[in-house]
Amino acid sequence: MSQEQELEIMRHSASHVMAEAMLSIFPDAKFAIGPAIEDGFYYDFDLPRTLTPDDLPVIEKKMGEIVKANLPFKHSEISKDEAKKLFASQPYKLELIEELPDDKVGIYEQGKFIDLCKGPHVKSTGEVKAFKLTSIAGAYWRGDEHNKMLQRIYGLAFNTQKELDDYQAWQEEIKKRDHRKIGKDLDLFIFTELVGKGLPLYTEKGSVIRRELERFVVDEELKRGYKHVYTPDIANVALYKMSGHYPYYKDTMYPVMKVDEEELILRPMTCPHHYQYYASKPRSYRELPFRIAELAKQYRYEKSGELTGLSRVRLFCLADGHIICTKEQAVDEINGALDLIEYITGMLGLKKGEDYRYRLSLGDRKDTKKYFKDDAAWDYAENVLRSVLTNRKAVFFEAENEAAFYGPKIDIQMKNVLGKEETAFTTQYDFVGPKRFSLTYIDSDGQEKEPIVIHRSSIGAIERTMAFLIEHYAGAFPLWLSPVQVKIIPISDRHNEHAMKVAEEMKSHGIRAEIDDRSERMNQKIRQAQMEKIPYMAVIGDKEAADNTVSVRKRNNEQLPAQPLSSFIEMLTEEIAKKTIS
Amino acid sequence: MSQEQELEIMRHSASHVMAEAMLSIFPDAKFAIGPAIEDGFYYDFDLPRTLTPDDLPVIEKKMGEIVKANLPFKHSEISKDEAKKLFASQPYKLELIEELPDDKVGIYEQGKFIDLCKGPHVKSTGEVKAFKLTSIAGAYWRGDEHNKMLQRIYGLAFNTQKELDDYQAWQEEIKKRDHRKIGKDLDLFIFTELVGKGLPLYTEKGSVIRRELERFVVDEELKRGYKHVYTPDIANVALYKMSGHYPYYKDTMYPVMKVDEEELILRPMTCPHHYQYYASKPRSYRELPFRIAELAKQYRYEKSGELTGLSRVRLFCLADGHIICTKEQAVDEINGALDLIEYITGMLGLKKGEDYRYRLSLGDRKDTKKYFKDDAAWDYAENVLRSVLTNRKAVFFEAENEAAFYGPKIDIQMKNVLGKEETAFTTQYDFVGPKRFSLTYIDSDGQEKEPIVIHRSSIGAIERTMAFLIEHYAGAFPLWLSPVQVKIIPISDRHNEHAMKVAEEMKSHGIRAEIDDRSERMNQKIRQAQMEKIPYMAVIGDKEAADNTVSVRKRNNEQLPAQPLSSFIEMLTEEIAKKTIS
Repeated sequence: MSQEQELEIMRHSASHVMAEAMLSIFPDAKFAIGPAIEDGFYYDFDLPRTLTPDDLPVIEKKMGEIVKANLPFKHSEISKDEAKKLFASQPYKLELIEELPDDKVGIYEQGKFIDLCKGPHVKSTGEVKAFKLTSIAGAYWRGDEHNKMLQRIYGLAFNTQKELDDYQAWQEEIKKRDHRKIGKDLDLFIFTELVGKGLPLYTEKGSVIRRELERFVVDEELKRGYKHVYTPDIANVALYKMSGHYPYYKDTMYPVMKVDEEELILRPMTCPHHYQYYASKPRSYRELPFRIAELAKQYRYEKSGELTGLSRVRLFCLADGHIICTKEQAVDEINGALDLIEYITGMLGLKKGEDYRYRLSLGDRKDTKKYFKDDAAWDYAENVLRSVLTNRKAVFFEAENEAAFYGPKIDIQMKNVLGKEETAFTTQYDFVGPKRFSLTYIDSDGQEKEPIVIHRSSIGAIERTMAFLIEHYAGAFPLWLSPVQVKIIPISDRHNEHAMKVAEEMKSHGIRAEIDDRSERMNQKIRQAQMEKIPYMAVIGDKEAADNTVSVRKRNNEQLPAQPLSSFIEMLTEEIAKKTIS
Repeated sequence: MSQEQELEIMRHSASHVMAEAMLSIFPDAKFAIGPAIEDGFYYDFDLPRTLTPDDLPVIEKKMGEIVKANLPFKHSEISKDEAKKLFASQPYKLELIEELPDDKVGIYEQGKFIDLCKGPHVKSTGEVKAFKLTSIAGAYWRGDEHNKMLQRIYGLAFNTQKELDDYQAWQEEIKKRDHRKIGKDLDLFIFTELVGKGLPLYTEKGSVIRRELERFVVDEELKRGYKHVYTPDIANVALYKMSGHYPYYKDTMYPVMKVDEEELILRPMTCPHHYQYYASKPRSYRELPFRIAELAKQYRYEKSGELTGLSRVRLFCLADGHIICTKEQAVDEINGALDLIEYITGMLGLKKGEDYRYRLSLGDRKDTKKYFKDDAAWDYAENVLRSVLTNRKAVFFEAENEAAFYGPKIDIQMKNVLGKEETAFTTQYDFVGPKRFSLTYIDSDGQEKEPIVIHRSSIGAIERTMAFLIEHYAGAFPLWLSPVQVKIIPISDRHNEHAMKVAEEMKSHGIRAEIDDRSERMNQKIRQAQMEKIPYMAVIGDKEAADNTVSVRKRNNEQLPAQPLSSFIEMLTEEIAKKTIS
């Protein structure tokens, strides 16, 4: 039996222990069902009164006694009639018994509690180790809103107290780091019913982060020889029929808009737009590699159940790019794309191996519905990608059936705060696109030849990357990304005027500074700034106003010595320019 | 008779003069029709051979003789039968005679030429002053492709030779400045059939201009206290039903996309998105004026006949903004919006009074279908706008029936290269939006109150502004907007290596430099750079490579003294930072 199965059995047994404890406290309790769940168990009860959180420690204490008594779990099988007599006062159990297909009914007994149950269970209550009741919720009998509302008690159960403690600490951390919560607390983005699900509106503060990320990636890509373009968010559906996206991705594409002579569609991908740009003139081998990049909005209709804050949306902005080059240039260009990704992740404070790893995503050659049929091309492309990873000495794993329809890819798998891996960035080898769009170049020998395409993202989808960074930094962004970089805190109202001058001076140096001129106590203002995760606070009192200095405090409460305003500004300017991770 | 009517008569007479000239050259010519047009005249002929451009001077010469002879135009009226006899050898004239409603047929005669014509005409051929034949084109008889294709000769005709010369020079200039032509010549943007009409793709070079304009306006708006946001390009149609746009602008809106539970639509306007942001929290009077700005893509389905290059498209990016403020703040905020527009137009080299002027656009109170009914609010808003313009001492004119449905506006009317005025930017007073979206603020007295909204753009729609700037500068952009700022010209191949170093040095200072390393003569390279309207050329020969200097030439051919590379870079950096109009 696997450890997981053992854990599940123990959790199920814990629910019986809780039921026994409930019976001793509420002798008239009616019992519904009590299964194991992902991190513990629950049991649904029909009780004479509504439970309150205060009840939980009492129940827990009783459970502790039952565990300590180490009562054996006894299994037996009886007939339906016997069972009906046994559970005569338990209407929910009677309903379940009625529905059993054959005459044999399994029961489990420990101490004074007997339950209708197929098992299995641990040997005795002493094997239920570390548990904790966490919450009470309403739950309809059988999940049907026409039935009676019962009371459900949730509990955690682990093999050791340490595992339980760690899990609870982790849960607390996740709750605190959830980008949806932080996004709301720090006023970074909103959703509204009238605009629609999965369509975030960035507030002033969230927009600062987005704009910084966008300009950072655009400037970096320009430096690396990309042509940074703007192409339209809509196109005639014929474009996606030609590219082959329409059949493959139709399910998540928005519907076609028919107007006059056109059949337009919101673009799910940018590649065909970039191909159109490349193909707008004859191209020479001298122009290759032809690197096109764009901050491209893309539209995919995700099911409403799958929408999650910024990480799964219906409209996102991808730092997209396509490198049109010769087969011979592919290795260099893929290396270049990975270099860029490693540079950007590094600047954002993410570590290879820790926060992300490489995945070589291969196609299933037999599945010609999902993958373009061309074995030689697949072989060649897979070898190119594998050799790039090997020669870079990159740690990677291979995954079948994860390629694009047009070729294999290298995915950068990012681990989120829940420990779950998601594809954040990608570099793909495409031997299909150039054929479909008749992309060519004139080689040095005067011959017309077919290039290949490398699809790549650099900073990924801005929305998802922002969600990731919010959770990674728990809202305490590096200075360059912080919506407000300095909170200026006048100690009393008479320092407000000087604080205004300080703010103006900072703003003229491009620093995002804000004054807290409320008539509050200094400590209250500091606490507020720390809650807002503002990197620096500049406190201004009599002395500071007289000397044109600032007393600086960081959001982690560290205090820097008082310093001339000019040297503080110099320090900030350098930290911003270097994009220091503090 | 007006001067225009006189001119039209003279032009019509010129077409008869041309017809007479044709008759003397082609005695068998069959004559169709020959009206006056906007800038001259044409006549359609059925001829024994195809005309070539070489024929035009011959015809012109003959026309000159007829004009010099000063033959009188003689008018008479004859019966249909007489006319049929007279035009027996002219099948097109016979067809026209058949269709005349009554028996009277007007004819005009000068010299040897008699035409079927109602007139009027000038007294004699000597009154035809300045003319010029410009082109030959094919034209179906009566514009019907089932009829015979005739040969049409176009001519210009003006009252004086100077007027004719000026007109021709202006036409040449317009042709040269047409942003569609320059956009193609300088490779700034493309259109493709597969993407769709009215949907421009910006190339690498066009994108440089767009990005510079976008960053310029965003940075300037941030400095002026705007919250610069990102909101989605689509929304549930309910948002536009609530705003009232849906009934008013439905004709140019894209169709609704129904998917699962949502009815989504491409946004034609940004205002309701910004209202949603404002309304996401309770707001205090301390937060007003609440200035929201966005580079917002907007979608309007223009008829295909109305699409024109970048100036009329189906998807554009508006530097949009909404100021939510109290009625009392309106004057200051409108002034602020106009200040920003004047600052931006000034930086772009556009002059108030010359390139643009103010229009106060009012509503027609009686038209309650088109304009929201609230006379008091209209009075108040119109007075606010009028007083702002008056107090600024702005020259403006008033226009009825040009307001938005929600209030009056101040439009900035920009004159394009054709001399035609178009609304480039706007500042609007809105007393309807806040009601529809229940926008409120808590005033200092604790009462909930209703703000007003000022809609404004700053640099307008990027597409239209780019079209305008391309024509204004005829492609020779100021340095900061130039896609390539410096062309480095090695005199011979042996200077290529040093040229590369110079390019790298420039790029490291953020200057967009490019090398022309073709094996061409220096003069050829200079000509090429000038054709590409590149502001500076840096020529590198033996001496320059040895001293690390550059010989600088401007696109207007002005030569600067040879100077150290570093001082050239310094000069460029300053010119870029100051956004100098050169």
